[in-house]
Amino acid sequence: MVEIPIVKRVLERNEIVANEVRDMLRDAGVVMLNFIGGPGAGKTTLLEATIQLLPDYKVAVIEGDIATTTDSERINRLGVPVVQIETEGSCHLESLWVKRALEEINLDDVDFVFVENVGNLVCPTEFDLGEHAKIGVLSVTEGDDKPRKYPLLFRLAEAVLLTKVDMLPHFKFDEGRFVSDIKKIKDVPIFKVNSLTREGIDIWVDWLRTLK
Amino acid sequence: MVEIPIVKRVLERNEIVANEVRDMLRDAGVVMLNFIGGPGAGKTTLLEATIQLLPDYKVAVIEGDIATTTDSERINRLGVPVVQIETEGSCHLESLWVKRALEEINLDDVDFVFVENVGNLVCPTEFDLGEHAKIGVLSVTEGDDKPRKYPLLFRLAEAVLLTKVDMLPHFKFDEGRFVSDIKKIKDVPIFKVNSLTREGIDIWVDWLRTLK
Repeated sequence: MVEIPIVKRVLERNEIVANEVRDMLRDAGVVMLNFIGGPGAGKTTLLEATIQLLPDYKVAVIEGDIATTTDSERINRLGVPVVQIETEGSCHLESLWVKRALEEINLDDVDFVFVENVGNLVCPTEFDLGEHAKIGVLSVTEGDDKPRKYPLLFRLAEAVLLTKVDMLPHFKFDEGRFVSDIKKIKDVPIFKVNSLTREGIDIWVDWLRTLK
Repeated sequence: MVEIPIVKRVLERNEIVANEVRDMLRDAGVVMLNFIGGPGAGKTTLLEATIQLLPDYKVAVIEGDIATTTDSERINRLGVPVVQIETEGSCHLESLWVKRALEEINLDDVDFVFVENVGNLVCPTEFDLGEHAKIGVLSVTEGDDKPRKYPLLFRLAEAVLLTKVDMLPHFKFDEGRFVSDIKKIKDVPIFKVNSLTREGIDIWVDWLRTLK
């Protein structure tokens, strides 16, 4: 097996830069959150709603996508600074790219940096970006079995958002099981939201305020 | 940059075994399909519906999951042979694991092997498993922007299934844009299905029959 030491080396190098990012953020007094969820989990819509309910804080956004700048354009319309990282095939963000993106942002003028990782429940969890916390984003429409099937994200996340809760009546989604499966892995807060109607966003935003 | 030649080596080694798998399948006259989609795209439910509408063919299933055997248990209930690969963290299946799984199946007694890859729109597309065709699985609830954001899958797939079409009235999903974005990448058949009600499954199954 050739690849294992190499993967370790990639992760070790990633960790060194992640620590540099952590220092940058601490020096500037900025809280950075790393939003991780599958494709279509509703990460961009969640960020739009969150930014609109946090008018008293200055937010900047880093968007990670394999291709397209669609998500950045959506965030940009809210008038917050946004830096796009097009990964050109890579399934996750790495700390070096985030560091370069942070260098494009005036951190002295920012309270929060929200990083929207590539839509993927697996790979992004393994790469420390120097963030304050990882935030897991799951939608009702993906099904209640995701905490069991993708446990690593739930072990590492500091909060979980269950999005598209207006779809609960339309899907066989066992909320009790979803919550208890997560709590078995880690006792994290779980926020139920509908980002389009803003349902539940206020409670999530109150939690965000406790981080500053 | 250290990792690029190594990634190449992993892919080259994967390709060698994929060719061995192709030989195995050709010798046995078996058609293997590699189903790729994000977490919760509805891959397992699609396979359940497909198997039930293909009673005249013998099907076997290989299930790739990072953790849990939930999906295999669901398929197993249909009385078809199923082999589970638990990837223990890996974000995709590789040809060597599929080859080992195929060795557990009596290929002389099988027409189709359906491989359900790990729930991930990115990594599985890069690993040839020796399959006859890759099948892209996208759900309405993930949003119409996925072909633009994850173009590689659509470049490589021989067919695309749009699942959960009963949700079209509940989501801002521009079907025309979804279809034209895919057709811009590659002119593949696109099947609209609701696996739970079996809507559209018959047309998809008719296409499958043309492969045998």
